[in-house]
Amino acid sequence: MKYVYLFGKGINEGDASQINLLGGKGANLAEMSSLNIPVPPGFTITTSVCNLFLKNASLTPSIKKNITKSLKNVERVMLKKFGDQENPLLLSVRSGAKVSMPGMMETVLNIGLTSKTIPGLINKTNNPRFVYDSYRRLIMMYSDVVMEKAEQKKGIHIREKLENILENYKSAKSIQYDYDLSSDDLKYLIKKFKIEIKKQFKVNFPDTCEEQLWGAIEAVFKSWNGKRAIQYRNIENIPHDWGTAVNVQAMVFGNLGKTSATGVAFTRNPSNGNDNLYGEWLENAQGEDVVAGLRTPQPINESSKTLQTKKNKTLQKTWPVIYKKLISIKNKLEKHYKDMQDVEFTIESGNLWMLQTRSGKRTGEAAIKIAIEMNEKKLISQKEVLDRIVSKNIDEIMHPKVDPETEKINSPIESGLPASPGGACGQIVFTASDAELWHKKNKKVLLVRHETSPEDVQGMHVSQGIITAKGGMTSHAALVARGWGKACIVGCSNLNIDLKKKTVTINNSIYKEGDWLTINSTEGLIYDKKLKLVKSNFFQNKYFLKLMTLTNKFKRLEIRTNADNPKDAALSKLLGAQGIGLCRTEHMFFDKKRIRSVQKMILSHSNDDRKSAIMELLPYQKKDFYKILKEMAPMPVTIRLLDPPLHEFLPSQKNTSLIKSLAENMKISAKEIINRIIDLFEINPMLGHRGCRLAISYPEITEMQVEAIFSACAKLIKEGVKPNPEIMIPLISTVGEFENQKMIVDRIAKKLNAKFNIKLKYKLGTMIELPRACLTADKIAQTADFFSFGTNDLTQTTFGFSRDDIGSFIQDYFDNNILLDDPFKTIDQNGVGQLVKLAAEKGRKSKPKIKIGVCGEHGGDPKSVYFFDDINLNYVSCSPYRVPIARLSAAKNAIRNSK
Amino acid sequence: MKYVYLFGKGINEGDASQINLLGGKGANLAEMSSLNIPVPPGFTITTSVCNLFLKNASLTPSIKKNITKSLKNVERVMLKKFGDQENPLLLSVRSGAKVSMPGMMETVLNIGLTSKTIPGLINKTNNPRFVYDSYRRLIMMYSDVVMEKAEQKKGIHIREKLENILENYKSAKSIQYDYDLSSDDLKYLIKKFKIEIKKQFKVNFPDTCEEQLWGAIEAVFKSWNGKRAIQYRNIENIPHDWGTAVNVQAMVFGNLGKTSATGVAFTRNPSNGNDNLYGEWLENAQGEDVVAGLRTPQPINESSKTLQTKKNKTLQKTWPVIYKKLISIKNKLEKHYKDMQDVEFTIESGNLWMLQTRSGKRTGEAAIKIAIEMNEKKLISQKEVLDRIVSKNIDEIMHPKVDPETEKINSPIESGLPASPGGACGQIVFTASDAELWHKKNKKVLLVRHETSPEDVQGMHVSQGIITAKGGMTSHAALVARGWGKACIVGCSNLNIDLKKKTVTINNSIYKEGDWLTINSTEGLIYDKKLKLVKSNFFQNKYFLKLMTLTNKFKRLEIRTNADNPKDAALSKLLGAQGIGLCRTEHMFFDKKRIRSVQKMILSHSNDDRKSAIMELLPYQKKDFYKILKEMAPMPVTIRLLDPPLHEFLPSQKNTSLIKSLAENMKISAKEIINRIIDLFEINPMLGHRGCRLAISYPEITEMQVEAIFSACAKLIKEGVKPNPEIMIPLISTVGEFENQKMIVDRIAKKLNAKFNIKLKYKLGTMIELPRACLTADKIAQTADFFSFGTNDLTQTTFGFSRDDIGSFIQDYFDNNILLDDPFKTIDQNGVGQLVKLAAEKGRKSKPKIKIGVCGEHGGDPKSVYFFDDINLNYVSCSPYRVPIARLSAAKNAIRNSK
Repeated sequence: MKYVYLFGKGINEGDASQINLLGGKGANLAEMSSLNIPVPPGFTITTSVCNLFLKNASLTPSIKKNITKSLKNVERVMLKKFGDQENPLLLSVRSGAKVSMPGMMETVLNIGLTSKTIPGLINKTNNPRFVYDSYRRLIMMYSDVVMEKAEQKKGIHIREKLENILENYKSAKSIQYDYDLSSDDLKYLIKKFKIEIKKQFKVNFPDTCEEQLWGAIEAVFKSWNGKRAIQYRNIENIPHDWGTAVNVQAMVFGNLGKTSATGVAFTRNPSNGNDNLYGEWLENAQGEDVVAGLRTPQPINESSKTLQTKKNKTLQKTWPVIYKKLISIKNKLEKHYKDMQDVEFTIESGNLWMLQTRSGKRTGEAAIKIAIEMNEKKLISQKEVLDRIVSKNIDEIMHPKVDPETEKINSPIESGLPASPGGACGQIVFTASDAELWHKKNKKVLLVRHETSPEDVQGMHVSQGIITAKGGMTSHAALVARGWGKACIVGCSNLNIDLKKKTVTINNSIYKEGDWLTINSTEGLIYDKKLKLVKSNFFQNKYFLKLMTLTNKFKRLEIRTNADNPKDAALSKLLGAQGIGLCRTEHMFFDKKRIRSVQKMILSHSNDDRKSAIMELLPYQKKDFYKILKEMAPMPVTIRLLDPPLHEFLPSQKNTSLIKSLAENMKISAKEIINRIIDLFEINPMLGHRGCRLAISYPEITEMQVEAIFSACAKLIKEGVKPNPEIMIPLISTVGEFENQKMIVDRIAKKLNAKFNIKLKYKLGTMIELPRACLTADKIAQTADFFSFGTNDLTQTTFGFSRDDIGSFIQDYFDNNILLDDPFKTIDQNGVGQLVKLAAEKGRKSKPKIKIGVCGEHGGDPKSVYFFDDINLNYVSCSPYRVPIARLSAAKNAIRNSK
Repeated sequence: MKYVYLFGKGINEGDASQINLLGGKGANLAEMSSLNIPVPPGFTITTSVCNLFLKNASLTPSIKKNITKSLKNVERVMLKKFGDQENPLLLSVRSGAKVSMPGMMETVLNIGLTSKTIPGLINKTNNPRFVYDSYRRLIMMYSDVVMEKAEQKKGIHIREKLENILENYKSAKSIQYDYDLSSDDLKYLIKKFKIEIKKQFKVNFPDTCEEQLWGAIEAVFKSWNGKRAIQYRNIENIPHDWGTAVNVQAMVFGNLGKTSATGVAFTRNPSNGNDNLYGEWLENAQGEDVVAGLRTPQPINESSKTLQTKKNKTLQKTWPVIYKKLISIKNKLEKHYKDMQDVEFTIESGNLWMLQTRSGKRTGEAAIKIAIEMNEKKLISQKEVLDRIVSKNIDEIMHPKVDPETEKINSPIESGLPASPGGACGQIVFTASDAELWHKKNKKVLLVRHETSPEDVQGMHVSQGIITAKGGMTSHAALVARGWGKACIVGCSNLNIDLKKKTVTINNSIYKEGDWLTINSTEGLIYDKKLKLVKSNFFQNKYFLKLMTLTNKFKRLEIRTNADNPKDAALSKLLGAQGIGLCRTEHMFFDKKRIRSVQKMILSHSNDDRKSAIMELLPYQKKDFYKILKEMAPMPVTIRLLDPPLHEFLPSQKNTSLIKSLAENMKISAKEIINRIIDLFEINPMLGHRGCRLAISYPEITEMQVEAIFSACAKLIKEGVKPNPEIMIPLISTVGEFENQKMIVDRIAKKLNAKFNIKLKYKLGTMIELPRACLTADKIAQTADFFSFGTNDLTQTTFGFSRDDIGSFIQDYFDNNILLDDPFKTIDQNGVGQLVKLAAEKGRKSKPKIKIGVCGEHGGDPKSVYFFDDINLNYVSCSPYRVPIARLSAAKNAIRNSK
């Protein structure tokens, strides 16, 4: 087994295909190197070594021997020697797992600086400030990553302590920026740092280059099992046995003086997808300065400028030759990788070195535009376009933004970098744990931080949006938020956060925890009010529309929508819905004019009173159905008959004023109404008197609704329109319920056929949303024309989880790895899915051509759509705005299945 | 196809095996006749004819021809002619279905009396009073059964109207009894009757014997589909296509004067099973007088005497020769039928005729005694004993009775005939429909009626007990109540019911609707208070004990009990339980001393506080488990860990005084408690934070309970006892939950093994009470030692029925035939049962020897036990008092399966 792979300067033992073994970074370093792109030479220690190390808790002598041998090679290429007194080689040690993980970004630079090598390097570079600054960085990174985190020393916070020493020293000496520190300042600080380290860890800072190197390598391996890494993998469902590779590379220095710099860039604009190099750079700095956001970086070129940075100097203008080289590398990389790349580079004394390339994170808008344009330029195929776009991309471009009209009449209190576009509104919290706490209480929060770190990912995840005081477009917060499509503004330097008081001062105004803020993170603007959010105008996005057209070329599954009014119906058609899979009728009952009739019905004393009250709704319902059937014709509209329990139509028992007015209106006593409310109270309303159970007790509800549907159809038929109604009976648990309701429906159809001299065409089917309906689906299918799985309720009863009450324990389930997905978001294939599959099979055994779909929330969840497609259902139905995601998912799955 | 079967006087075309075709009555008439028992000759028209008639709505000419031909045969045997002016044959027409049905008792006697035949019969009998009385009866029965009911004339109530005419005439003439009416009185009444009939039906009373005969035959057939008959069949689950036979028989007359009589008798005492003829008779009367309870009958012999009738004259003393004949017939019948018979007889001018024999209804006590004694006398086999005893019999002897101590210090206000033994207590209602209405409101009612009729069966069914003012031991009320094992007193002649005012006057005290009464129906005593009821002392019943011993000889299924205290555990052992299948632990938390610790735990702010609060319960729980494990050792005790949601341990939000005292005790504010209560409120608590979900959030609960169980075991082991604990995790929906809890249990076992230097033996299993657990049972079985189906909760989630809320619609489901059984009483085989079967199969596939049982209420329901036995589960567990029923059911099913 080969443990170590060399790369750089013509020696390339690995390539991009070996990502599992070398990690993303290592594989790409090898690949770049083979493309003759200048990469500092080094080697990658494989992920297998990681797993071996974690198993044995140490590196075997044979592995160590391999590493030492590889190091010799780097020395040979670089003409330097690791630990040499005169011409010392310095190394970087970086982690590199298969996928980029914010929780795993362990980097130690400048390894090899010791009391033995420092004088030689000063001598050689003639730049003592650079050497001491490099040593200062080594100490800060190493003490944090290797001595504290990898050793799991808790409560020391060495990084913070050293930074405090640094900041105190700077303010005492009125120094603003790190790069203004002199070499004497740095020497002094280094002494102080070492004292602090000795105090905290009871050991000296390691002063041999070997100790430093092994410490750093092992620390990277250990960080794979750090709490924050595990947490992140849990969120992202990344297997824990992948392991990380370690990249050991010769140092090149962006902080070697005025002709040195460091930078990061995307080969296209990651926010909007424009085909321009987009990036940031910092003179005389090391990479961590850009990523950590400690200094606000400069735009790399004109097209990378923002409102804030429009006057800053660009790399393009400063060093045009190097910039040209960068552009040519960009072109080479895109052509080679056929995807937008995220690169890191360093300019050492005028020489350009590429430190990393990887597929770049991007916004949904950018992802779609890039994929479509790459397809147009024949770089990738249509299938690859669909393969590359993920539902999150679509979700994101359909995300809310601040309502433009509202925004016009409000003034932002501050602006920052638009790190991840969108809009968000929430109450201020200042720590990730507070974000989680408030979220559990169903609060919408905005997380306001100096900067974020991997420890914060869970809190970031539950926040509506994120604001950081520091950092750039590639800071931790920006990367993570963009990955999630979550609104985020970074680098708002005017924010002054007081963590103790839980306040933030922005331009002299003080805001405290719980105050409302709104952010427009597409523009980077912050408002100190709760502003209205609106859906984005993605209809005008031509790339999105092209993508949507593509989906139809490949998908098998029919996509319908859940809509109960003509407006949503029209919208859903624009979004590509092929019919309505769930038209709820209860909302139609809540209209002010109508609710009184419903209440009259509920409060009536005799059958006749009840019937006449319910029949008052007939003309309204007829109009409702007329409009929606007309809008969708000739596409099908699945109308679910009344579902909710009656008590939902009466005021709450505590609402005495509503009860009083209802009593006056009905000319009965308040007492009588209260009695009826008490009468209708249910201990478990989810399992109570609702759905078809109501219709069996009060068949007149079905009679009225069906008469309304068929009358509307009759009118449409006379007008030459072809209505396509599918009547759906909810909450069936036994075939007897269905047959009971079918008799009513068929009787009324017969009556209206005679009355209007027409022949109504309709389908009659049922929601399958209870385990018993699944188990007896063969019987139900004998008389039902279609099944529509109500997977929300089916999940509730199959798990015995009340969706309304699950909040009190689901987090414990995630924490204990009992659940990986929220079963209300992604269908539980093993349990609920098994029932769905069983029911579909039983149904088709009785009636091979029965139409079977899904109308629960799962219809808009990609993984669930894949499953429903795999088990060969006919359609899924989801809310209008989820239709594009369902279409994409159906297309992606069809492509996957065709492979 | 043969439509008509002759019987009597040596011609017997049918026999007892043809019960499907001839009905019970017809088959037995044929059988008796072939035993040379004197039966008035006649013929049976088959049930097939009934179905043909109901299909065609008329009798075909060929059937009519058959009947006429058969009638000729009767005429030939009887030496009389139907419709003859001089020597007319009179006929009875009776229904006779496969099983006796109170809703189907249509009888018309004296058919053939017309203006043409009456003079001849007077001439022949020289008894005008008899002839007119017979005619009067014919008119009353015929107008009711044929003219009104069969023709579905609603709202006439001819029977009531004619009876009013009769009663008014009697009071006007101060006549107390019908038999005191003279022939002139009767002639006058007949005229009045005919006028009333003409007025009501617009037709004359039929005056040809043919019209009378065909009318009566068709009326019997039609009555099969009468509302009351259908109702009864629905209650008793009798198929609607059985049909009824019609028995046409020569009349013999018990009302022919002082040497005539009529009677009914049981070959053994139907109340206690004693081996004596037990019956009633009436001189100079027709059968309907006994059955309808219009006159209170006389005891047939000494052993038939009751408190009320101890001074009346018996048949035994009055006509010893006839009595002897009756005894010899009794012996013949029992030997032949091998079962206790219920017979009707008529003595016409000193000649004994048997009109009917059938298997007699009996109390549970009687059923068991008779079966055991018949087995001891080798009349029937042990298997036949078990086949013959039904669960209802056992249920009945275990029924509550009035607490003897309480009864001692209370005086009854009235006594009546002890028609069906037991005790009952309820609020007075006066109509069957009120009984149903009050029952729906969860009231316990006692139905107080003049007499009951088939229309009342549903109201009787839902009443705690029944009292009637009229009627004897064989009246409708008595028969029906005895069949159901429901407490019933009949013939309380001092009851004066005012239906309008809804009051009953008993010995000058007035009681109104809603007042409480208690009855001791074993003694026939009525109390005007709510008296304490107690379980019966069936342990002293040696026949019961013999029966129970028999069950063990045949049953395969293990029977366990649900018990959570040593007293119930001890009781269940006496009742034959083979272990505890469900020991709930929540009741142990409600003890006054303990609930504070539970509340402290719920209200604690930190993990440590919570843990220390819960650990306060350890010594209590240890004691609980010690006692119960010791009581049952070495039999298994399945201990279910804490199941209910936490809010059950806090006061209700409205209970301010309890909250206040709790707040004082806890030294926190009431507000804080209220907030916690609100916090814990759940919309659907059945699907909320309970069961293992609690234990996953608060593992210390499991830790404490398991430590208590194992500490108790350790103590027992040291004492030389062999505890057999089975720890059961409730509400598992995923295998992850189980594994999470298993880790805790195994860890604590290990700890205690080390601490006490023992090796704990325990099983660890789970409740299977959610559909998802059934669907993934293969995975769960990999680590679980046993499954115990919680069929109550499984029924709730499979149907989506909340047991607490189903009351609002389940009646509609029964009314619409959507449900035949309450799925919470009898397992729903098609749905819930399918899941149980599936889970058992999946579980056994993973672990063939896994132990699988049921601990829901269904474990004590006979039909459900059959099902669980059929699908080869290992055991069922039910409440202690259901154990005998479960044992019987298991034995019966084993015998059935061995056939």
